[in-house]
Amino acid sequence: MEQLSIIIEGSARHVHVTREDLETLFGAGYRLHNKRELSQPGEFLSEEKVRVEGPRGAIDRISILGPERKATQVELSLTDARVLGLTPPIRESGQLAGSAGCRVVGPAGAVELTEGAIIAKRHVHVTPEDAEAYGLKNRDIVSVRVEGERALTFGEVVVRVSPTFCTRMHLDFDEMNAAGLSGETTGTVIVG
Amino acid sequence: MEQLSIIIEGSARHVHVTREDLETLFGAGYRLHNKRELSQPGEFLSEEKVRVEGPRGAIDRISILGPERKATQVELSLTDARVLGLTPPIRESGQLAGSAGCRVVGPAGAVELTEGAIIAKRHVHVTPEDAEAYGLKNRDIVSVRVEGERALTFGEVVVRVSPTFCTRMHLDFDEMNAAGLSGETTGTVIVG
Repeated sequence: MEQLSIIIEGSARHVHVTREDLETLFGAGYRLHNKRELSQPGEFLSEEKVRVEGPRGAIDRISILGPERKATQVELSLTDARVLGLTPPIRESGQLAGSAGCRVVGPAGAVELTEGAIIAKRHVHVTPEDAEAYGLKNRDIVSVRVEGERALTFGEVVVRVSPTFCTRMHLDFDEMNAAGLSGETTGTVIVG
Repeated sequence: MEQLSIIIEGSARHVHVTREDLETLFGAGYRLHNKRELSQPGEFLSEEKVRVEGPRGAIDRISILGPERKATQVELSLTDARVLGLTPPIRESGQLAGSAGCRVVGPAGAVELTEGAIIAKRHVHVTPEDAEAYGLKNRDIVSVRVEGERALTFGEVVVRVSPTFCTRMHLDFDEMNAAGLSGETTGTVIVG
């Protein structure tokens, strides 16, 4: 079977927020302002930025991605986590039980998270059409190979199939840098 | 043939210096002070640290590794390079022609490098005994696989065989973080 060639995008550190936490951070009644649509339909980069603090340090100007979510979540790279002095687990988005705590600071107030900071577990978003065409099922574990001077094969990549997705792989900047990638690039999904 | 299991060590950003540049940075007649032996015989972490400056930023307290060398060389991760605003090529140690310039600052003076900053090309140091036992030759290109939640296979790894080596792989911290590694760990060398 032909192999799926997938577009890879670098995903910078970012925060998702609940409406309640958004209002604590930016003021009562505040709503996110859409700066740019992202590749996943409905997701957007907002104009709002926050500071994230850990026991060892802080990182300023981290973008909030919209829309609002059911839980506030801070997605970091391991490099970021070391700057902050956090040891977040490697998790899929939304799986926050027992993840790392940190403090999120906005212009109107701060939120103390007892959990919410994670390192994103590698995954690919796949449309049902691409999944069928390339023999992939939701929750399959695959590898993704990128070529070049720093060729890498990423293992333990979870396949997530949904009609609300656009077929894409997101890597954090530790992963992008380890592979010597910048900008948009392409990888090959390897099954088995 | 059995596969070579190789010890992997994280290699932080560092600088190698000529005697002349060492004296410019630290003063006439200055010599490096050995703080700790490294795994490669004769190499050591010195007590001396310098600041490296690029067009966009600077990084302080970068260690000098000894002994002195024939050319001053700054080995960075891509994350570091972006902080500094440099675009160093991916090179083997010592292959500095056309590499990136930067400024190195010590307590007694500064050195303007027109070239010398590189991102280390992936390589493994192998003893002649291990090379023979595992069917590896100097300059072979292999892959190295590490397991775990962030399992990765590093491609385009150059084999360097020398009786002055200890069998080791060194990764920068972008690569260590992309693979979720910390401390000393082990990978498997895959030939072909």
